[in-house]
Amino acid sequence: MQFTKMHGLMNDFVITIHDTIPANVEQLARTICHRRIGIGADGLVFILPSELAEFRMRIFNADGSESEQCGNALRCVAKYYAERIVTTKPSQCTVETGIGIQKVWLEYRNHQVTQIRVDMGEPILQAEQVPVLHQEPIVIRQPIQAGSHTFHFTAVSMGNPHAVIEVEDPYQIPLETWGPLLEKHEWFPRRTNVEFISIQSPHEMTMRVWERGAGETMACGSGACAVVVAGVLTERCDRKVTVHLRGGDLEIDWNEEDRHVYMTGPAEYIFEGNWVSKTNI
Amino acid sequence: MQFTKMHGLMNDFVITIHDTIPANVEQLARTICHRRIGIGADGLVFILPSELAEFRMRIFNADGSESEQCGNALRCVAKYYAERIVTTKPSQCTVETGIGIQKVWLEYRNHQVTQIRVDMGEPILQAEQVPVLHQEPIVIRQPIQAGSHTFHFTAVSMGNPHAVIEVEDPYQIPLETWGPLLEKHEWFPRRTNVEFISIQSPHEMTMRVWERGAGETMACGSGACAVVVAGVLTERCDRKVTVHLRGGDLEIDWNEEDRHVYMTGPAEYIFEGNWVSKTNI
Repeated sequence: MQFTKMHGLMNDFVITIHDTIPANVEQLARTICHRRIGIGADGLVFILPSELAEFRMRIFNADGSESEQCGNALRCVAKYYAERIVTTKPSQCTVETGIGIQKVWLEYRNHQVTQIRVDMGEPILQAEQVPVLHQEPIVIRQPIQAGSHTFHFTAVSMGNPHAVIEVEDPYQIPLETWGPLLEKHEWFPRRTNVEFISIQSPHEMTMRVWERGAGETMACGSGACAVVVAGVLTERCDRKVTVHLRGGDLEIDWNEEDRHVYMTGPAEYIFEGNWVSKTNI
Repeated sequence: MQFTKMHGLMNDFVITIHDTIPANVEQLARTICHRRIGIGADGLVFILPSELAEFRMRIFNADGSESEQCGNALRCVAKYYAERIVTTKPSQCTVETGIGIQKVWLEYRNHQVTQIRVDMGEPILQAEQVPVLHQEPIVIRQPIQAGSHTFHFTAVSMGNPHAVIEVEDPYQIPLETWGPLLEKHEWFPRRTNVEFISIQSPHEMTMRVWERGAGETMACGSGACAVVVAGVLTERCDRKVTVHLRGGDLEIDWNEEDRHVYMTGPAEYIFEGNWVSKTNI
């Protein structure tokens, strides 16, 4: 199986072009994402044919589960498409993902894509659609008990669920303990991604993310969007914010007119390969 | 740069054929071994021409430092050589490594190498040659203070230094704390690999390894040899022992006649690739 390894802010993916998803895709994703006897990645991403957009993207996490959406992967596959699949240097393209058709804009320097801007769509705030089991119709800074700790979280879906929690310093918390407790909390029937943030100014925040099915990652694009939405809802930031993630920075813009969230950031090639192992995990 | 990713008991390597070592090899090894924005591996291994053996092997760790020797890497490159470089299905070959010429035997099934037996040479026990700074000429079960803890260690060199420590259960110790304290202890002028072992019977032991320059790995071939040598010296085991490592089992045989240690185990292909990234770390 031919593949290309790419990363968006160190959130890394094995990207492969297929006509259909293999039958054993869950096992394949677990094997391929394994960092010692697989290729090693946060996710296995398929570029597939689409009747609705230029192409379709589906992404499977390291545990075999499928993500509806992943902003970092979308930037990677958009760069791959613009540089390696078509020869027209498109300034924009559309991608069919688990949340519908996503629009992407591409900036070039020396014929190479440097920054990719993604329309991440309109955030979903209604609790039952996030989904989060809560009496409030929209969950903003509500208490939640997990382990021996009470957190205050804002629930935002960017196609996938996020629980955003402000802390003093995201790098001084036991993420490996708190992450899974919140990810699998009974209030989140489809589990949740969890973002811990600190706010430096109305235009700048720092986040650390615990991704559903993947654990801590270096960057989560939809998570960066969710934290700015939560920051606006709680009146802690403006609508244009630089979000510092472990893997680097993303520019997030929650547009007031169309209410869509726009994310701008880079994507990088790492290597090309051919998967030959028969090992299963 | 064309490469093949292989593993020996989940100790994983990027293997590449070169005429000479690149000038920037330390940085290259750090970049390539990085598990998110590199290929990801415990070591970068070069197959090079040799005037003394069938080929020469040099291995660079994830931190850029060079290893004189690595049994798991040697099994991998021997399989690679026998299956992909020559067409003669050799039953043995010789490899020039940092500790001299090493001899390797190959077992086949269906034209594929299944088990590789490596002559790991004669263990070096003289303290000054391990090297370990100690008043005893041979260091067997001697106390050593590291942090707030006193350990009892046996010092063995298999071309690279090892400190072997028996504990009740290697999986119930804080390896991330103890490992670096011992690796960088002032008694080891060239640092040391550290093995924590438990002994199930005279023919069976379990080990966990902290590798110099790499941290915990799934398996260390020279370490598995060193723990059996230490076990014999302390009269805790026989000369033929199955060693259980995190990544799987190795058969170790410390031959009484020639005093060499022989290690037998598997090696596996994972994938082929072409390194295209320009990113440096």
